[in-house]
Amino acid sequence: MKIAPNSKLVMIGDSITDCGRALPVGEGLGPSLGNGYVSLVDALIRTAVPNANIRIINMGTSGNTVRDLQERWQTDVLDLQPDWLSIMIGINDVWRQFDSPLQKEWHVGVEEYGRILTQLVATTRPQLQGLVLMTPYFIESNKSDPMREMMDSYGRVVKEIASAHDAIFIDTQAAFDRILVHMHPMFLTWDRIHPSVTGHMILAQAFVQGVGV
Amino acid sequence: MKIAPNSKLVMIGDSITDCGRALPVGEGLGPSLGNGYVSLVDALIRTAVPNANIRIINMGTSGNTVRDLQERWQTDVLDLQPDWLSIMIGINDVWRQFDSPLQKEWHVGVEEYGRILTQLVATTRPQLQGLVLMTPYFIESNKSDPMREMMDSYGRVVKEIASAHDAIFIDTQAAFDRILVHMHPMFLTWDRIHPSVTGHMILAQAFVQGVGV
Amino acid sequence: MKIAPNSKLVMIGDSITDCGRALPVGEGLGPSLGNGYVSLVDALIRTAVPNANIRIINMGTSGNTVRDLQERWQTDVLDLQPDWLSIMIGINDVWRQFDSPLQKEWHVGVEEYGRILTQLVATTRPQLQGLVLMTPYFIESNKSDPMREMMDSYGRVVKEIASAHDAIFIDTQAAFDRILVHMHPMFLTWDRIHPSVTGHMILAQAFVQGVGV
Amino acid sequence: MKIAPNSKLVMIGDSITDCGRALPVGEGLGPSLGNGYVSLVDALIRTAVPNANIRIINMGTSGNTVRDLQERWQTDVLDLQPDWLSIMIGINDVWRQFDSPLQKEWHVGVEEYGRILTQLVATTRPQLQGLVLMTPYFIESNKSDPMREMMDSYGRVVKEIASAHDAIFIDTQAAFDRILVHMHPMFLTWDRIHPSVTGHMILAQAFVQGVGV
Amino acid sequence: MKIAPNSKLVMIGDSITDCGRALPVGEGLGPSLGNGYVSLVDALIRTAVPNANIRIINMGTSGNTVRDLQERWQTDVLDLQPDWLSIMIGINDVWRQFDSPLQKEWHVGVEEYGRILTQLVATTRPQLQGLVLMTPYFIESNKSDPMREMMDSYGRVVKEIASAHDAIFIDTQAAFDRILVHMHPMFLTWDRIHPSVTGHMILAQAFVQGVGV
Amino acid sequence: MKIAPNSKLVMIGDSITDCGRALPVGEGLGPSLGNGYVSLVDALIRTAVPNANIRIINMGTSGNTVRDLQERWQTDVLDLQPDWLSIMIGINDVWRQFDSPLQKEWHVGVEEYGRILTQLVATTRPQLQGLVLMTPYFIESNKSDPMREMMDSYGRVVKEIASAHDAIFIDTQAAFDRILVHMHPMFLTWDRIHPSVTGHMILAQAFVQGVGV
Amino acid sequence: MKIAPNSKLVMIGDSITDCGRALPVGEGLGPSLGNGYVSLVDALIRTAVPNANIRIINMGTSGNTVRDLQERWQTDVLDLQPDWLSIMIGINDVWRQFDSPLQKEWHVGVEEYGRILTQLVATTRPQLQGLVLMTPYFIESNKSDPMREMMDSYGRVVKEIASAHDAIFIDTQAAFDRILVHMHPMFLTWDRIHPSVTGHMILAQAFVQGVGV
Amino acid sequence: MKIAPNSKLVMIGDSITDCGRALPVGEGLGPSLGNGYVSLVDALIRTAVPNANIRIINMGTSGNTVRDLQERWQTDVLDLQPDWLSIMIGINDVWRQFDSPLQKEWHVGVEEYGRILTQLVATTRPQLQGLVLMTPYFIESNKSDPMREMMDSYGRVVKEIASAHDAIFIDTQAAFDRILVHMHPMFLTWDRIHPSVTGHMILAQAFVQGVGV
Repeated sequence: MKIAPNSKLVMIGDSITDCGRALPVGEGLGPSLGNGYVSLVDALIRTAVPNANIRIINMGTSGNTVRDLQERWQTDVLDLQPDWLSIMIGINDVWRQFDSPLQKEWHVGVEEYGRILTQLVATTRPQLQGLVLMTPYFIESNKSDPMREMMDSYGRVVKEIASAHDAIFIDTQAAFDRILVHMHPMFLTWDRIHPSVTGHMILAQAFVQGVGV
Repeated sequence: MKIAPNSKLVMIGDSITDCGRALPVGEGLGPSLGNGYVSLVDALIRTAVPNANIRIINMGTSGNTVRDLQERWQTDVLDLQPDWLSIMIGINDVWRQFDSPLQKEWHVGVEEYGRILTQLVATTRPQLQGLVLMTPYFIESNKSDPMREMMDSYGRVVKEIASAHDAIFIDTQAAFDRILVHMHPMFLTWDRIHPSVTGHMILAQAFVQGVGV
Repeated sequence: MKIAPNSKLVMIGDSITDCGRALPVGEGLGPSLGNGYVSLVDALIRTAVPNANIRIINMGTSGNTVRDLQERWQTDVLDLQPDWLSIMIGINDVWRQFDSPLQKEWHVGVEEYGRILTQLVATTRPQLQGLVLMTPYFIESNKSDPMREMMDSYGRVVKEIASAHDAIFIDTQAAFDRILVHMHPMFLTWDRIHPSVTGHMILAQAFVQGVGV
Repeated sequence: MKIAPNSKLVMIGDSITDCGRALPVGEGLGPSLGNGYVSLVDALIRTAVPNANIRIINMGTSGNTVRDLQERWQTDVLDLQPDWLSIMIGINDVWRQFDSPLQKEWHVGVEEYGRILTQLVATTRPQLQGLVLMTPYFIESNKSDPMREMMDSYGRVVKEIASAHDAIFIDTQAAFDRILVHMHPMFLTWDRIHPSVTGHMILAQAFVQGVGV
Repeated sequence: MKIAPNSKLVMIGDSITDCGRALPVGEGLGPSLGNGYVSLVDALIRTAVPNANIRIINMGTSGNTVRDLQERWQTDVLDLQPDWLSIMIGINDVWRQFDSPLQKEWHVGVEEYGRILTQLVATTRPQLQGLVLMTPYFIESNKSDPMREMMDSYGRVVKEIASAHDAIFIDTQAAFDRILVHMHPMFLTWDRIHPSVTGHMILAQAFVQGVGV
Repeated sequence: MKIAPNSKLVMIGDSITDCGRALPVGEGLGPSLGNGYVSLVDALIRTAVPNANIRIINMGTSGNTVRDLQERWQTDVLDLQPDWLSIMIGINDVWRQFDSPLQKEWHVGVEEYGRILTQLVATTRPQLQGLVLMTPYFIESNKSDPMREMMDSYGRVVKEIASAHDAIFIDTQAAFDRILVHMHPMFLTWDRIHPSVTGHMILAQAFVQGVGV
Repeated sequence: MKIAPNSKLVMIGDSITDCGRALPVGEGLGPSLGNGYVSLVDALIRTAVPNANIRIINMGTSGNTVRDLQERWQTDVLDLQPDWLSIMIGINDVWRQFDSPLQKEWHVGVEEYGRILTQLVATTRPQLQGLVLMTPYFIESNKSDPMREMMDSYGRVVKEIASAHDAIFIDTQAAFDRILVHMHPMFLTWDRIHPSVTGHMILAQAFVQGVGV
Repeated sequence: MKIAPNSKLVMIGDSITDCGRALPVGEGLGPSLGNGYVSLVDALIRTAVPNANIRIINMGTSGNTVRDLQERWQTDVLDLQPDWLSIMIGINDVWRQFDSPLQKEWHVGVEEYGRILTQLVATTRPQLQGLVLMTPYFIESNKSDPMREMMDSYGRVVKEIASAHDAIFIDTQAAFDRILVHMHPMFLTWDRIHPSVTGHMILAQAFVQGVGV
């Protein structure tokens, strides 16, 4: 595994990451990691490498865009002094442009998205042993759907940033696409965003493959 | 208006019709008509023709397919002795084939759908002054999406039955399509089925236009 | 329609406007516009002119008199920088004089009502593209009922202010009176103030006719 | 006092009587008499004649018409073997004709009202030491309001039945009218039916004066 | 009645006065006077003298001793600028000495009780048109019960203060004693302090007789 | 200890015994013995004789009189096949005569009390290895209080039955009296019936002394 | 994978299987599989073999012993006509002997356990394409703990039955033991029975390895 | 008894002490002492020495380690000016090292534990008439379990501090060990920490024996 034993891994993101994690810091006794992919990543690593002692902290917050990450970066990432960091952000940056088209001040365009994410990554990467960047996704098979098209463009931005800053790149959209060959999106999720346990397992397995578990 | 003064109109269907209506019979003091299109139809008729005294009863039940309508037809339609009847069914008949593909006994195929709906309509139409048949719909712009394609085929069955049994035909899918030209489905609904108030207003206006208010 | 495309319309008032809107600002995902006439206005405009992209914000607060509007005018109107504004206030100004006759400091007499409303309108009108003033109302057929008489006098004040400040005037009392010819007030509301969906539809239709939808 | 010591008094009626009384029988420890006029009657008698030991049982049920009383007469009156009985019924018989004009099967016209009430009184009176008949009422000053007019006609029926069957007659409408000279109905109640504690005290005092406390 | 028309009467005390009154000020729409003797006083005065327009405000607070009254005297009495004031305090001053004998700092001995109450009365009386002082009470027939004996001594202090400061004196203990001749304390209350509606009616009638209604 | 190892002890009674025990049978995982004296008896025996393996089942039911015990004797005592049985009943038999003097059919007089209790004991004793009879009590120091006097007479009946049927007699009233020398009843309980943990410890210690632990 | 495409797999057991599954049948929309190992098995199979279309039904019930399985075998297993069946039972059979030692009728000894389980397996195996038998477990490292020793003996019974009836044998105790080498039981669970997500992942991975995914 | 009459005893600790005590100070009317050993100590002392008038205050807080005690020592011990003090702390200091091994900043090692506890005791002892130190415990029979071994070492530290500072030493672990000879830990508790009423009785009896009741 690429993550060294006894490392601390902070995983930050939006509602897909959050999933009811503990506040203000997502770790501790009980179901403090939430019931999404973060909890599955923890269980998969723990069972695969039981003596690695990786400490995982869930810092996802529902509804967040990359702007919200920027605002809470000091307290929710830097102050925790992580060895490793994973970021999955962008779904709400895109979604609000389609479900709330009139509230333009809520939209985070692709240029601003790239700029803020680059800035966060560039200033933080030197302090990290490793960084994982996960793309946002849209569980929609039709690649010419306007929201799917826009989400793909945000994913390409993530790929470029990962490449430029020595990050492990996780293409969550590709992971979903592989399984959508076999089933309609409705089987995984009604709103094409918040998936079933199967969807979270797809995300968790993409992550653990990315870090070499 | 095609509905004569002092008529009793029963409106039956699934969750789109139900919307929290009163049980066991959807009328009475308070918000007994639910908070969906039935309530809007009631208000639109009441304000347009305040002396018509049309009595509207909401008999929608969440999750229903045409099979469920058949089972409760005696108590929930015939026993109420309506002058007019409206039916909007089929969404769950189709949806389960996509969100629950493995539970095949939950699926109502298009042949069975047409057969049961025809039987209900044929036996009930003679006792009615008027009948309104509303298509099921899927708030999806991509007409080659498999679920949209299947939903359209169920809508065509409704159109044929309406034509064969002297019913007013309401093409709810066409009503949604007209507005989807201007906005992404996410603006109206996250799951492409349960719409916002705007979506229910589209349904209510299609209905009142159909009955000539 | 008199409201230009892409305009922002703020609607302020009391419980008739509020109806459970989101806090602190009445817009966003879900039923944030409340379940009263504001939500119906939004749906009627959206379906009638789907490409107009009017953005509607509900800023009603239950129990408010014109004094309360004055106190929250900066944050709840000016800070939102509306293009259009609608105001419906006065019901509680009158009602407290009848249901709480002994608490005289809660009463807003007609002179004070007119003075405050004039001041709010006069200072705000120049920054607006359009203003809509809706009268308060009392769903009571008996025009010599003392509370009805007083409410009518407040409505006349609204009419004068509308005339003096280039506002669209909506006579909600007249809209209710037209329908009360055909039914007893008890059919629309038990307390003669908070109406059923039909009553809210009357308000919404009066509004959209006023703005030319 | 006309009621002999150690008598059992059953008080039956609708929501004005009910007021949250205990089920299935309205007596016992705690606030089992409800928080309306029955509880005040009990307290007024208890304090005025502390050694009379009158036992009061509240058998009111919200929403009841005289038809509902007839259905539960055996279990809720006769089986309790009262020495004295009071009846206050008719408000819902009238009200439904105004708030639910289209549901004609819910209406109890004045002829049917008189017929059923007469039948109940005639068959029960011989087993009673005393009977109290209280009129229904409408807290509305305008005597030409259609619902007030109809309520008054039901009250006249009660007066006739009382006269014909040796019952103490309590004119609750007159009791309210005396106080409405000094205040608008809104001071006592928003819906003109369910009063404040002051309104229940008016009813209770009318009752105790009627039975000579 | 000794209280002049249009007077404002503030009634302060402990849980017997409080009974769930509105916060922070015990008046307004709905059951804001609580469901104890204050509400009955209001109803008895309102029905007896419907044009007197006495405004009653309930400022009782559960658990209060005279020390607590002193602390909130400015905001809860003086700031309200009452014309008339009633005070019923002392039950908790005594009760804590019996149910919490070890927590001596919670006890308010008779000397301190008299001193604080005198100070409150002496400084406030000049600003009042009238003052009503009600004794504390213990619903216990056995006058040699130690808690009854102590409560009686606090009542005598109230009597002296009333006499010295031109206050109407209400002997609530005597009012209860008169009825306890006819029944065991358990009939009125399980804990000998918080009474049934009958007990509150005893208090309310003692009050209205005291002020001459 | 008089109770042989591995015995099953059923403890039946009213709310003092019940204290929230599990239904339908008061034993099992969690706090199934309730939080009153039964639970303390269990803990005291368990710690004093940890290898005795006495199985205790709480069958108390709030509000019960001896009549209620009789009705459920078959299912709640005999069907459980106890080796030992304890009974504490009579408080409600007496209490209703004082808090509900008018509901005479709720009263269980001392003659009926003795007759039913004797019958239950006489028919069951032969099947038991041991029987414990606990008196009812009233936490009142004044022995001439009418309710105390009556409770004492019921206790004497229990003593006689115990003597006649070879039962261990527990005088709970005497146990309370010993401690009331040092404190007012209010220290143990507000209603003189339902005690604090100290009161339940008094009952539990009286029990374990009676059975020789 | 040993399970053929389109098979139906029923998984039955106790609270470890149940985990809040849907009632009466554990499948359908939403989290109907519960949040334990069954849900993880479903997700692992779904992602590993997305076109296999295995249908999984969770029929676990909290607190069950093998006796309870026997009672509901017809409705909860046979009526569902599974192709494959998995059984994990025995934890409560053992646990009650330690946490409820006195309630001997709740204990299922190893002989009865083996007899009932053999009977269920023997009669059902012929109708199945495949059967999976999972041992009960105790997350305790100390193999000489009496409860651990007893649990191991029940596991050996499962192994023998699996061998005799052509079932896939899953040694869940061995799976936990492998990970307990690296951590204290408190890390996985406070009560040594109900594990964290990591513990459920251990169970799920043991299952999918057993069936060859 | 070693504790003089009229003394004030503060008992501080973690969740075993807390058990739902009143906040901010654990005394007063109702179940303010919580439902654990503190409440039993109070009842045992009160019944054994009813005229001793010992005042007991429960200051336990769930989840506390000795570090947390140190932080709240001024407000929660010193400000209360106790005559006697009891401390039972250390369970969480140890437990976190086993259930949260990766969160090393949550662990309180034995050296730090001894240092802080010594400092608290040394500075407070002079102001006290008496001090009781209770060991932490682990309800586990296997003395070579790592968590049991560590807990025993913390208990030895408590013993040394007690000896050095003239404190009464209560060996709670020994008290549990004596009873564990006769039963498996599962009989007393599922998590080996939070015991049943029997377990709290063991603690309470150890305490009262220690102080000579």
